[in-house]
Amino acid sequence: MPIRLERSYRFSAAHRYVRPDWSDDENRARFGKCWIAPGHGHNYRLTVTVVGEIDAPTGFVVDLGVLDAIVRERVLERVDHQHLNHAIAEFAPGGQIPTSENLALWIRDRVSSALPAGVRLAMVRVAEDDDLAAIWMGE
Amino acid sequence: MPIRLERSYRFSAAHRYVRPDWSDDENRARFGKCWIAPGHGHNYRLTVTVVGEIDAPTGFVVDLGVLDAIVRERVLERVDHQHLNHAIAEFAPGGQIPTSENLALWIRDRVSSALPAGVRLAMVRVAEDDDLAAIWMGE
Amino acid sequence: MPIRLERSYRFSAAHRYVRPDWSDDENRARFGKCWIAPGHGHNYRLTVTVVGEIDAPTGFVVDLGVLDAIVRERVLERVDHQHLNHAIAEFAPGGQIPTSENLALWIRDRVSSALPAGVRLAMVRVAEDDDLAAIWMGE
Amino acid sequence: MPIRLERSYRFSAAHRYVRPDWSDDENRARFGKCWIAPGHGHNYRLTVTVVGEIDAPTGFVVDLGVLDAIVRERVLERVDHQHLNHAIAEFAPGGQIPTSENLALWIRDRVSSALPAGVRLAMVRVAEDDDLAAIWMGE
Amino acid sequence: MPIRLERSYRFSAAHRYVRPDWSDDENRARFGKCWIAPGHGHNYRLTVTVVGEIDAPTGFVVDLGVLDAIVRERVLERVDHQHLNHAIAEFAPGGQIPTSENLALWIRDRVSSALPAGVRLAMVRVAEDDDLAAIWMGE
Amino acid sequence: MPIRLERSYRFSAAHRYVRPDWSDDENRARFGKCWIAPGHGHNYRLTVTVVGEIDAPTGFVVDLGVLDAIVRERVLERVDHQHLNHAIAEFAPGGQIPTSENLALWIRDRVSSALPAGVRLAMVRVAEDDDLAAIWMGE
Repeated sequence: MPIRLERSYRFSAAHRYVRPDWSDDENRARFGKCWIAPGHGHNYRLTVTVVGEIDAPTGFVVDLGVLDAIVRERVLERVDHQHLNHAIAEFAPGGQIPTSENLALWIRDRVSSALPAGVRLAMVRVAEDDDLAAIWMGE
Repeated sequence: MPIRLERSYRFSAAHRYVRPDWSDDENRARFGKCWIAPGHGHNYRLTVTVVGEIDAPTGFVVDLGVLDAIVRERVLERVDHQHLNHAIAEFAPGGQIPTSENLALWIRDRVSSALPAGVRLAMVRVAEDDDLAAIWMGE
Repeated sequence: MPIRLERSYRFSAAHRYVRPDWSDDENRARFGKCWIAPGHGHNYRLTVTVVGEIDAPTGFVVDLGVLDAIVRERVLERVDHQHLNHAIAEFAPGGQIPTSENLALWIRDRVSSALPAGVRLAMVRVAEDDDLAAIWMGE
Repeated sequence: MPIRLERSYRFSAAHRYVRPDWSDDENRARFGKCWIAPGHGHNYRLTVTVVGEIDAPTGFVVDLGVLDAIVRERVLERVDHQHLNHAIAEFAPGGQIPTSENLALWIRDRVSSALPAGVRLAMVRVAEDDDLAAIWMGE
Repeated sequence: MPIRLERSYRFSAAHRYVRPDWSDDENRARFGKCWIAPGHGHNYRLTVTVVGEIDAPTGFVVDLGVLDAIVRERVLERVDHQHLNHAIAEFAPGGQIPTSENLALWIRDRVSSALPAGVRLAMVRVAEDDDLAAIWMGE
Repeated sequence: MPIRLERSYRFSAAHRYVRPDWSDDENRARFGKCWIAPGHGHNYRLTVTVVGEIDAPTGFVVDLGVLDAIVRERVLERVDHQHLNHAIAEFAPGGQIPTSENLALWIRDRVSSALPAGVRLAMVRVAEDDDLAAIWMGE
């Protein structure tokens, strides 16, 4: 009987949307206020959902301390109180735009492979505010 | 690699549950306080989830300005600060009852066909308060 | 040592802003979308704060059951699932406009005089959504 | 056209994580602060999602009064203002640990079989705070 | 120019309302479900507001690390994941009832005297859920 | 009978805490993660409370459109999607640190003098997240 555990984290980060291969006019037209230098920021809310069987002795799908350590070391310590375009190689100038969509996939890649045996990543949700979120759904 | 974008909107509207083909007693028995004339209201929270591939140059599943314009023109301008039984033909007396369930399907019909190529409607969620929501799930 | 107890309640109601002694143009200019007939609605959140000394045996400023009964009978049963302009004489056509400001004072009048001895009304806050509230402050 | 109705409830309960067949050291190592006697507590938020066809005359997937009565009688009256290890036989000493995961399955078992014909249980979500929830997903 | 800093914390605790000098009937009549043994629990939200002048070099009213350490050591480590009637001498059987009102005053006493020079405690707010809070107001 | 109107706004901005007259070690010691270049960001929530008499014809303390325009033009258009140290002269290198405390006073100065006759600024609250806010209280 698989069950899911949904765990939320918060981090504060700055980001900017800009393509150096585009003119200023083109950047402004496509990215609007998100193009303004050197960027703005958000209180991100990250929700990680894992799925697996309940371990009978503990009643846990996953040891929460283990999950928290994975997310803290592999994600939060990389992005919290950072400017994403500066701190994350994939989002450096000329790389990917640090949208919630790209950030969700970057987090999925970093968390998915680190989970303990028997626990699978089911969903990663990155919300940049109460009204906008990107979601990767695995199962 | 499909990814989802979840976007929330708010609107304020009044509604009333009544069937003119039922007696007052029957209306009261089935609809309770929702039957009281001329109606009450809610701060609705509408969440629209779309799914698609990320556009590599922009990092977007969908241009948020485009999605917002679709929802604003096709939904919000029709329902915000309105009485649903008066403003929406489908919910006029003798038509459908303006429950969250029916409202979710009405919104799905209006948004789904208007989305840009490559973007599919995955979910419509209509919450009339923090504790009650209707959800249409596409994929 | 006075201490406060802050208690929140919810109700759903419809309302409309209109002055019959004004032209349609004037009503529309001053009240905007709030003028649209027959009205729209909100999930109101009412917060009542009382102040007094702690009763030593119970540790209560006020018996919560007593406070809840006062608010339910004198306020919630009058406004929940109602259209304020229809259900409340003070807000009928030609009377006061059912703004949050006027509603806060109407509630203060109904609650203040009913409180048990030794308990004073310190504040009434009426929020029509997350971003707008009227507050009457007594002390 | 199936549609979902998502309904949330709240209850306050205490719980403690302890296995009598483990030493104190082992209990402390695995359960941390959740092992401290005689337990701590939470404001739980329970979300029950049902799925079915809309009943055309009423616009309802399920009569909300019926659903609320099922959850109140079969779940809330058993757990609200209780200590789960004391009040629920399955969570008594030597039984299951009252984690959110086990609680979600206990609730599923109690609600699923009681739903009216034509309505299926799609999801049970038990959140012990804003950042942690267990989810059973049926469909 | 005095300014306030409002800082919120969370803790989970159990409590029970009972007076050993009252009969069971009297306890039940006054305390209702809060009398049920061995207690229930809440996710408490504690808000501490301090007031003072801004320190010009840092722009701070108070060093947040200092304030957080005071509240953590003097309050949170005493109450988090505890049963208040067991863990806090003032709330032991025969002592004060662990209501939000009494808890707010207990916290005020522990925090007020520990604040750095130039910073005064302006308010302590203890919310046991979204709808109920006790507030001690200093200035 | 004075009454208050409390109105909330949101904006996203980046900021950094740094004093060029301090060594890196000193900056790091006092500002911690807030010192990391080129800054991080928040979804700020600004609450402006005004107080005055109710205008009898409209039931308004203040015309909400007027208040919104003042805040939008004098505050939001200056800070939204900006890096505060870059966009606001008072927070440029060598100036004030863009803490919530300093930001609250900056906003008070810009809003207070622009209010319509008969309406006074009672409070400005700047929250950088759910757990931290600075408050200027006038009356």
